[in-house]
Amino acid sequence: MPYMDYVAGSPVDERVIEEMLKYFRHPGNPSSIHSKGLEARQIVEDARAKVAGLVNADSSEIIFTSGATESNNLAVIGYVMRNKNKGRHIVVSAIEHISIINSAKFLMKNGFEVDFAPVDSHGKVRPDELENLIRDDTILVSVQHANPEIGTIQDIEKIREIFDCAFHVDATASLGKIEVDVEKLGVDMLTLSSNDIYGPRGVGALYIRKGVRVNPVILGGGQERGLRGGTENVAGIAGFGKAAEIASEEWRAESERLQKMRDRLIEGMLKIEDTYLNGHPVERLPNNASFRFSYIEGESILLSIDMEDIQASTGSACTSKTLQPSHVLMAIGLKHEEAHGSVVFSLGRWSREEDVDYVLEKLPPVIERLRMMSPLYMKRKKGGD
Amino acid sequence: MPYMDYVAGSPVDERVIEEMLKYFRHPGNPSSIHSKGLEARQIVEDARAKVAGLVNADSSEIIFTSGATESNNLAVIGYVMRNKNKGRHIVVSAIEHISIINSAKFLMKNGFEVDFAPVDSHGKVRPDELENLIRDDTILVSVQHANPEIGTIQDIEKIREIFDCAFHVDATASLGKIEVDVEKLGVDMLTLSSNDIYGPRGVGALYIRKGVRVNPVILGGGQERGLRGGTENVAGIAGFGKAAEIASEEWRAESERLQKMRDRLIEGMLKIEDTYLNGHPVERLPNNASFRFSYIEGESILLSIDMEDIQASTGSACTSKTLQPSHVLMAIGLKHEEAHGSVVFSLGRWSREEDVDYVLEKLPPVIERLRMMSPLYMKRKKGGD
Repeated sequence: MPYMDYVAGSPVDERVIEEMLKYFRHPGNPSSIHSKGLEARQIVEDARAKVAGLVNADSSEIIFTSGATESNNLAVIGYVMRNKNKGRHIVVSAIEHISIINSAKFLMKNGFEVDFAPVDSHGKVRPDELENLIRDDTILVSVQHANPEIGTIQDIEKIREIFDCAFHVDATASLGKIEVDVEKLGVDMLTLSSNDIYGPRGVGALYIRKGVRVNPVILGGGQERGLRGGTENVAGIAGFGKAAEIASEEWRAESERLQKMRDRLIEGMLKIEDTYLNGHPVERLPNNASFRFSYIEGESILLSIDMEDIQASTGSACTSKTLQPSHVLMAIGLKHEEAHGSVVFSLGRWSREEDVDYVLEKLPPVIERLRMMSPLYMKRKKGGD
Repeated sequence: MPYMDYVAGSPVDERVIEEMLKYFRHPGNPSSIHSKGLEARQIVEDARAKVAGLVNADSSEIIFTSGATESNNLAVIGYVMRNKNKGRHIVVSAIEHISIINSAKFLMKNGFEVDFAPVDSHGKVRPDELENLIRDDTILVSVQHANPEIGTIQDIEKIREIFDCAFHVDATASLGKIEVDVEKLGVDMLTLSSNDIYGPRGVGALYIRKGVRVNPVILGGGQERGLRGGTENVAGIAGFGKAAEIASEEWRAESERLQKMRDRLIEGMLKIEDTYLNGHPVERLPNNASFRFSYIEGESILLSIDMEDIQASTGSACTSKTLQPSHVLMAIGLKHEEAHGSVVFSLGRWSREEDVDYVLEKLPPVIERLRMMSPLYMKRKKGGD
């Protein structure tokens, strides 16, 4: 029953479902000039205003996409392709989401140069190291607001001061959890995800500051100011708008509630011997608790606790099928076996205090049982005795 | 009340909404290894089997995307980028959807050569002309199955015989209206749209025949066999699957019903003087009736009939905001003023005989009134009298 894998996927809020149900039967295409088209256009624009409001942007600066991955592609590839005459170098942090990492690798294959900014053992981008990577021909820096795997929040405002070129921030994990204000952060582009704020999947957005030019990634009929082809997903966008409206009103209280539970979870979990918190101890997402359990595999833990109906992640769901250790955990300096022994518990709107109690009751015996089967652990025990 | 703009957008079927409602509350990410992830994976795979079944493909040949536009991008750009070592020339028909045309133009800007295959006055690709365009270094031909604006159905099986290179077919307009069988058609890639078969928007698919290689257009976490990054839109995909299942069972009866209505609409409409059918008189989609009304503007007709609560299109909704005449209508040899005087009536699942009666009653006086305001028409009337 305790679902603690909100970082991988969230249920859609009932109020969002209700909003979408108003529009699934609406046939209008926002590009049509008749009344049904105008109605559909209005639904999309109302949603755009709500999404813009959540991040203190202007409606005209919000481009709807099919999700955070596409938004990240649009920001990195779309920006670089449009502005390549200004320079051919970009910097992204080493712990970005795989959609940023793979966008950067795509650019490398196409004649651009990419540097990956290192992070410290808490997952914080080091300003001095980042500064050293900035060159005269650097046209874009991309750093996430907060990391979904280890929870660490970056000092975006300080990072912004280091360089003058365009700045993209992936706010997928932070939106609705901490304050996300494009003016305060000083960003040029910001990635927004719908499902991460309990809206539908298959919808996202990219904030693009007025005056910033990007090339589209999806080429079609000139929708979204020519930046995203394809008929607008009207009901989905309306749902995202509703989710943004709810988040605007509720995020502060919700985050306070989640943070208390998270702290209790961390406190209880660290009582298990040889267990450590990943990420920053304080500057972390209010819903994220990432641990490494020495001597055992995160995957074994996941499967064992799933039998107790507890769901969590090893690193990012997007890359969980690969056997590679998480690039995020490697970047903060964990050894292979430490990275493989990590599990993220992420809380969300439907998490309850009882869930924390339940997890704190069920976890210790699972860890102990798994360690009993670990040769490394048993060897150490013997040595210690 | 008579909505006759199904080509621009469709309501979602109630049975599809019901199916999606089962999954909006499901938090699972298909990439997660725990039970909720496996459940989500199963939902997606069940839907994939249903979509595959509709076009006689194998499940493993279906890649889910965010819609037909993205599928068309993936087919044209993704295929060419992956296979550019085999040749640098492609052929697309002159009346393709704007997402194909713009994909082709993108390739032209990036060092590839594109030829646009001409069509005859009915909108049929001319096999001899197409054959002349095929070169040794042609790696891809893309021809739509049926045209959404003028309804003309192409002889895909015959076209397939003309060349040996890869063949992409956009079946957005034909799916669920006529038989679409990837084996009979002999295609390598086929674009499928969800909303065009009364599924949700923001979802589509590309059939990619086994052994055919493409590069992804959206780069992320390796979802969809590495061909489409981004967390799967589980509920939307389930909805598309349900829509495909319904279409598999009902399309023949539905098309028969629509065709009767369409024929009555065409018969009645052609009684209005100086009114002509666009597209092929027989080999056309069962739900499509496209007309040109001499001496008046399609846009004026649209707005006037909208006052009577009838919705239709001038050409494609995707390009309706531009002032250019439809590239499809120009390609079939219409003059500017003929193209501008064209209106498409498209029927769908909720179209009723009464709708046809209503349209046939309301249209003639609208056309007459608009012509009374047309200097050209009045001049001709005088000359004729």
